[in-house]
Amino acid sequence: MFDKFHEECGVVAIYGHTEAATMAHLGLHALQHRGQESCGIAVSDGRTVACHKAMGRVADIFTPDTLNKLQGAMAIGHTRYSTAGDSQLLNAQPFSINCIKGQIAVAHNGNLTNAAELRKMLEMKGAIFQATSDTEVILHLMAHSHERSLPDALRDALLQVEGAYSLVVLHRDGIIVARDPHGFRPLAMAQLELAGDRTGYVFASETCAFDLIGAVYLGEVEPGEMVIIDSDGLRRERFYQQRNTAHCVFEHVYFSRPDSLVFGRSVQLSRERMGQLLAEACPAPTADLVVPVPDSGVAAALGYAEVAKLPYRQALIRHHFMGRTFIEPSQAIRDFGVKLKLNPVRDLLKGRSVVLVDDSIVRGTTSRKIVRMVRSAGAREVHLRISCPPTLSPCFYGVDTPTKKELIAANNSVEEIRRFVEADSLGYLTLPLLRRAVDDAERLDFCYACYTGDYPTDIVNISELLAAPRPSAR
Amino acid sequence: MFDKFHEECGVVAIYGHTEAATMAHLGLHALQHRGQESCGIAVSDGRTVACHKAMGRVADIFTPDTLNKLQGAMAIGHTRYSTAGDSQLLNAQPFSINCIKGQIAVAHNGNLTNAAELRKMLEMKGAIFQATSDTEVILHLMAHSHERSLPDALRDALLQVEGAYSLVVLHRDGIIVARDPHGFRPLAMAQLELAGDRTGYVFASETCAFDLIGAVYLGEVEPGEMVIIDSDGLRRERFYQQRNTAHCVFEHVYFSRPDSLVFGRSVQLSRERMGQLLAEACPAPTADLVVPVPDSGVAAALGYAEVAKLPYRQALIRHHFMGRTFIEPSQAIRDFGVKLKLNPVRDLLKGRSVVLVDDSIVRGTTSRKIVRMVRSAGAREVHLRISCPPTLSPCFYGVDTPTKKELIAANNSVEEIRRFVEADSLGYLTLPLLRRAVDDAERLDFCYACYTGDYPTDIVNISELLAAPRPSAR
Amino acid sequence: MFDKFHEECGVVAIYGHTEAATMAHLGLHALQHRGQESCGIAVSDGRTVACHKAMGRVADIFTPDTLNKLQGAMAIGHTRYSTAGDSQLLNAQPFSINCIKGQIAVAHNGNLTNAAELRKMLEMKGAIFQATSDTEVILHLMAHSHERSLPDALRDALLQVEGAYSLVVLHRDGIIVARDPHGFRPLAMAQLELAGDRTGYVFASETCAFDLIGAVYLGEVEPGEMVIIDSDGLRRERFYQQRNTAHCVFEHVYFSRPDSLVFGRSVQLSRERMGQLLAEACPAPTADLVVPVPDSGVAAALGYAEVAKLPYRQALIRHHFMGRTFIEPSQAIRDFGVKLKLNPVRDLLKGRSVVLVDDSIVRGTTSRKIVRMVRSAGAREVHLRISCPPTLSPCFYGVDTPTKKELIAANNSVEEIRRFVEADSLGYLTLPLLRRAVDDAERLDFCYACYTGDYPTDIVNISELLAAPRPSAR
Amino acid sequence: MFDKFHEECGVVAIYGHTEAATMAHLGLHALQHRGQESCGIAVSDGRTVACHKAMGRVADIFTPDTLNKLQGAMAIGHTRYSTAGDSQLLNAQPFSINCIKGQIAVAHNGNLTNAAELRKMLEMKGAIFQATSDTEVILHLMAHSHERSLPDALRDALLQVEGAYSLVVLHRDGIIVARDPHGFRPLAMAQLELAGDRTGYVFASETCAFDLIGAVYLGEVEPGEMVIIDSDGLRRERFYQQRNTAHCVFEHVYFSRPDSLVFGRSVQLSRERMGQLLAEACPAPTADLVVPVPDSGVAAALGYAEVAKLPYRQALIRHHFMGRTFIEPSQAIRDFGVKLKLNPVRDLLKGRSVVLVDDSIVRGTTSRKIVRMVRSAGAREVHLRISCPPTLSPCFYGVDTPTKKELIAANNSVEEIRRFVEADSLGYLTLPLLRRAVDDAERLDFCYACYTGDYPTDIVNISELLAAPRPSAR
Repeated sequence: MFDKFHEECGVVAIYGHTEAATMAHLGLHALQHRGQESCGIAVSDGRTVACHKAMGRVADIFTPDTLNKLQGAMAIGHTRYSTAGDSQLLNAQPFSINCIKGQIAVAHNGNLTNAAELRKMLEMKGAIFQATSDTEVILHLMAHSHERSLPDALRDALLQVEGAYSLVVLHRDGIIVARDPHGFRPLAMAQLELAGDRTGYVFASETCAFDLIGAVYLGEVEPGEMVIIDSDGLRRERFYQQRNTAHCVFEHVYFSRPDSLVFGRSVQLSRERMGQLLAEACPAPTADLVVPVPDSGVAAALGYAEVAKLPYRQALIRHHFMGRTFIEPSQAIRDFGVKLKLNPVRDLLKGRSVVLVDDSIVRGTTSRKIVRMVRSAGAREVHLRISCPPTLSPCFYGVDTPTKKELIAANNSVEEIRRFVEADSLGYLTLPLLRRAVDDAERLDFCYACYTGDYPTDIVNISELLAAPRPSAR
Repeated sequence: MFDKFHEECGVVAIYGHTEAATMAHLGLHALQHRGQESCGIAVSDGRTVACHKAMGRVADIFTPDTLNKLQGAMAIGHTRYSTAGDSQLLNAQPFSINCIKGQIAVAHNGNLTNAAELRKMLEMKGAIFQATSDTEVILHLMAHSHERSLPDALRDALLQVEGAYSLVVLHRDGIIVARDPHGFRPLAMAQLELAGDRTGYVFASETCAFDLIGAVYLGEVEPGEMVIIDSDGLRRERFYQQRNTAHCVFEHVYFSRPDSLVFGRSVQLSRERMGQLLAEACPAPTADLVVPVPDSGVAAALGYAEVAKLPYRQALIRHHFMGRTFIEPSQAIRDFGVKLKLNPVRDLLKGRSVVLVDDSIVRGTTSRKIVRMVRSAGAREVHLRISCPPTLSPCFYGVDTPTKKELIAANNSVEEIRRFVEADSLGYLTLPLLRRAVDDAERLDFCYACYTGDYPTDIVNISELLAAPRPSAR
Repeated sequence: MFDKFHEECGVVAIYGHTEAATMAHLGLHALQHRGQESCGIAVSDGRTVACHKAMGRVADIFTPDTLNKLQGAMAIGHTRYSTAGDSQLLNAQPFSINCIKGQIAVAHNGNLTNAAELRKMLEMKGAIFQATSDTEVILHLMAHSHERSLPDALRDALLQVEGAYSLVVLHRDGIIVARDPHGFRPLAMAQLELAGDRTGYVFASETCAFDLIGAVYLGEVEPGEMVIIDSDGLRRERFYQQRNTAHCVFEHVYFSRPDSLVFGRSVQLSRERMGQLLAEACPAPTADLVVPVPDSGVAAALGYAEVAKLPYRQALIRHHFMGRTFIEPSQAIRDFGVKLKLNPVRDLLKGRSVVLVDDSIVRGTTSRKIVRMVRSAGAREVHLRISCPPTLSPCFYGVDTPTKKELIAANNSVEEIRRFVEADSLGYLTLPLLRRAVDDAERLDFCYACYTGDYPTDIVNISELLAAPRPSAR
Repeated sequence: MFDKFHEECGVVAIYGHTEAATMAHLGLHALQHRGQESCGIAVSDGRTVACHKAMGRVADIFTPDTLNKLQGAMAIGHTRYSTAGDSQLLNAQPFSINCIKGQIAVAHNGNLTNAAELRKMLEMKGAIFQATSDTEVILHLMAHSHERSLPDALRDALLQVEGAYSLVVLHRDGIIVARDPHGFRPLAMAQLELAGDRTGYVFASETCAFDLIGAVYLGEVEPGEMVIIDSDGLRRERFYQQRNTAHCVFEHVYFSRPDSLVFGRSVQLSRERMGQLLAEACPAPTADLVVPVPDSGVAAALGYAEVAKLPYRQALIRHHFMGRTFIEPSQAIRDFGVKLKLNPVRDLLKGRSVVLVDDSIVRGTTSRKIVRMVRSAGAREVHLRISCPPTLSPCFYGVDTPTKKELIAANNSVEEIRRFVEADSLGYLTLPLLRRAVDDAERLDFCYACYTGDYPTDIVNISELLAAPRPSAR
């Protein structure tokens, strides 16, 4: 309902816990914000791999009954945001298949930029595709590999794909996780202390999943690294030579939960730092107070208020009991959509000059509604501050973004945007400051393509991709 | 899941809008926090009264299909929290009946303290009761009244009942709303500007319902007042002589949404004031930062931080994607229940001395889990501050409270509670300060019975009530 | 979907079986043909009465989970067909209430002809009505009764009502069943042999319910009789002086299951006898074979074939996998509705002259479709034979019938009907023969009002009833 | 619930009707008896192929909404019975995939006897399998074919598979149907007269599907024949040389609807003929009447009664309102399972000697319950007659049969079976007579393997198959 970029998935993997599916399900619960349209869990008991997936949210799909049927000590899970066109069970993950290598299930966060080419090549070899997701390509590449062992076949497959992937793979006897050489999407690793001094392992897109199930964070799966766990223990292996790291900075700006470590950094601290730098660069001298657009603007607003020495006030309240559909009366309610989610506290805003802190402006229409809401609650001035640079370019690494045409900043100056959103002033965090906020000023370990159009990988078919409808999610 | 007192209902009424049911449904959406187990809407098109109610949340129950069947320009709605024993559709509201006075639907927030006596008396007269709710009593009293007109019959009924009620009544030709002489529960009134210079009216438990549908707040329905609207227009009538006002202070402490005006006051401002006074009275000299228990502790924590001149940090993140049930693995997860909802931001807490601000301690078990969570995230010290006095006594005016035996403060000193919740220090806002926070220090317009045991009405059967299972909700 | 009169309910009662709800549920399963829109069970464990009811079929509503919550050794159950206007949960039975006499649940098959008058009188006394069903009237009469004991109060109530009722009543300590003085609707009684030489009792609309649960048929509850069972044992009591018996003959013609005894007679034998007499009275000399319209025409067709010495052939096959809705293609399929249920066996019909035996013609449209279907499957001649007289008049005793205007036989001669249904000949069983078929030729123990318009009770408001939309079902 | 062999699928295909999905859905409705656990429809509008499938019955799955989304003039449909182990959506049909040949959807009735070998071979070539169904093998073979056109690729695939298949294939531009060279399972063809003199085509497992949608039967798709329809018109092509025909005789004995033509013969007439021959071969001289076990025993019982010159009586009534689960009280009801479906008419059975006609005895337990039921309803003697020979061997051509160990006739003499089922006498139709009944005495066009163990094809891995759990259904 909000006009945001959408994270396209979360993944989790469990090894060595007798109730692996239950643990995976809790992990998915913690990752629910990364995708709410379908989810699934595959589990192995050492003999066969079973899988359950469905459209909907984790808490609705995984009932005690369902979980009881998923017995085994190894599991992977996936939660998915799907783009309009392909909201089908068919594309829900994990994908679970049989091939010459045995039973394999896979769940994927990211997007392959050469999926279409690979798919054509595989179809020439006789492959049949049941879904539109690019993840199926990886399975076919594994199945066609001449390598005997699963880790070797997976490496073989990954050397052929381009783009972003944080991958969890389950087979009868173990799990393998892998991350693309650029490390676009996060993938963290943790340890479970179990009864009888046994150790279990957990992998997840974000560390908030570890906190819920009481696992101890060990660090990131490295870009270009594969971690193989089976009865022989855990082995880490670099399957790809060093390449430039390109962590998605938007994970810190908006996607991830503030209580997570992502790429080894606290998201909350990154956001507070963004707010602090934003206050230095774009002050609002006449302002009386700082108000976040909840929930994602909260940390940056706190940072802004601290540096600006202005009171921080939660003058917009977010309503969390959401349903799928609401009927608007035919005699239309002004700014209906935003009102369903946000409501101002008038007594805090009346007659005040407000710095409103948000994390992004996508099309601009939602921002305008929020500015109007604050103003009509009595604010004298509204100074909009955005905790990252203007978003100019679509993402091809696993984020659902509008086309360039729809992105207001791709087609308008900051002053034009200000006028459109009806703010008294508008300030964006600059790219150099964003890089400082995530401690990436010296190095260049993050991907900023959505702010720069400068993609960290060669995308041969980029013109096609830009013209096409949005890539299918996973 | 959290150990809180529970508000037991929200009500809404619409007069004069051609899509009254849709408007009522939006109003209920805004009041969803007041009760999430059942909801219903009754509507009149001037000929008959139709009603739809079901178990579940507003957004799930009122589909476009359902709303389309509820045609008419007058509607009332209800959302209900139900206590364990009577979670049945039977008790869902509005109640809609036929009697000598015609078709009547009624929705009620509050609790009648003499319902049992009235019920016995009515049964002696041949009345049959289908539900366990006390609201049915009001309908029977109206049906048995010798008064001809509905407003007269309602007045007749209300003069016989004791206790708390904010009542919305729908009949074929109009609506009537009424509030008990003590004004225990809130009931506000607003105006809808409609096409063609017509005016509509809205009544709701909280003003956040007005904001969503774009109605303009006019003020409170007065204690002991009845507002009658039909084709003759709107009439306000005092049906009960002046009695001592007794607004439920817990509406400001916890129940109501911070963006609402309740009893004519901003809830957010009350809570910030509670935090400010709490900081003065219970400072934490060694503390490094102030952290709220979200979401209800946020405003008080902001007030506390302001006065204490300590940084305010959102170091506990609340997870909003909740389902009904979660399976805990048999190898139990420490403090599982709280972890499903809250997670600490370790980097903000590590090595710090923390003031943790919450709005209440009921049984103490949840507070202990939260203190432990903060400590195990690395906090050096945890100073728990509660933005109201210890809760000692159950409520008989429409709040679902545990029995005295279960209330930790009814049976333990503050020091004992501190030890139980494992905090380094524990401070409560005193009653005089709470009264100052809601500007009730001079007058005595609020009910503080849950902190004092001093009930503002005579409750003849109080020993029975205290012994009995909790009163049925509405 | 078929154009039939509809039975409006089935009732069951269980006393003395530790799993009374489960037994009641099985009984309702056997009575499912008597009403498929809602059903419910109320149960008493000697302390309280619990009730569960919902829209839908027995097998869908009473899951193991639901039944487990209905503990107790006494139960009543109800299955209901509802007319268009009032298909609401509100009218589902049993009704379960509290009143001065305690908790009472009641389920009712039949229709009270003076319900409107009683309702007005009760409303004058302050009664409130939640449903539109006339059964609620009985509960109010009981609650208003000055009699102390429940059986006395029930007798008091029944002496005031007119019309048809087979009633099962459950209270905390026992059950009471009662049947109207005319015995319009059936109500049979059986015994359950239980472990430890204990005896249980079962009451049901039809004996097929006894067969399923292994109860031994004892006989009918007599018209004007009340059977009271509680810890003092079973007592039978005549609460009304002898009146002319008026069993609904349509129970034997169509409603009841052929494997039931109804009014003490085998339904199957009655129907075979109707067919035999029909063959004598309306032979079809040129016919080659006899074909029933399944399922209800089967027994009469067998009787017809036997006497006519013609082969009996099942040349119309009924399809039993029915759903609620089917989309007809816009390029319409001829006689779509009937085709969904029936299909001819061409090889049996080709070139043959067919006697088609059905149990009734209501509006005539369905009969015409069936005649056409048989003819287009190749039949040379179609001779339609109906196993009862033309239906002329609506029923006010618990059957859902169309208005007089819609009844083809009320407005057309037999020859006109024949032409309308496009049959080569048409024959009805005459009233005298129908009476012979049910052994009622000498006496007059059955109600034939739907064939004669001669109602066995005075219906003071009959002109109103005839003008009004159909009476609400129960 | 009944102890029967289970037909494992029905298929339908529509070409040239603008509402092809709606027509397919009606066709599936008519074929619902061939499989009730899942169903699906794939449709092409000439641009893309869309597919909807789900667990459940046709009427529940294909709502108006669902059908509206399936636009196009070509469609195929499938209804499936699934064996215990693989009751998953994954195996529901049609399968719809993308490959080098484009989008293909396929639905299959039958069973491939060399699926496991082909699967291994395909996996060696890199194929990945998502389901356990053998139908997926056909798609892989097509995708791997070097033939360019779809019909050629399908022929290529079919020349590699062994076993039974009636196949409907949908692609963007047309449909192809094919039947295995032995013609195990039925597949019939019909014509639709459409507005504007256009012609449409329909294919279905049974002709009852044609009757419902008003299509005119043209004949069988020949064994080894492929029918190709696209914008170039309809072409029939023999893809396999003549082999011995082997129609499944059990289609006539039990599976198919009596109102269908199957293998070009009336099922009803076959069954009546079986009954006639059974009466000649196994008379019951002392019997008073003939009673069918409904519904499948009805036609044979009519034939038996005719020849035996005994009255035919429907003394067992079948109950058609079935749910999935029923709770049996812990104090068990005798022969509970059978009672849920059947009930005797005592007045027809009391003191009589009964010939009971059924179509098969599988494990014997159900037959025993029915014999007991008839006897306890008062029958003096029960003579059981079965309208086919003893079933000795499992089926590998698409029927779900118990293992040899479970088949009572595989391990017991007729006399032993008689004793087990507690009948006074037991007679089976002999194989020669069964062949006469289906006019196959001279030729040998039917498969009788379940009676003889003599399989019409070489099954190389038969010992494996016999040892393994039942083959997966389709």
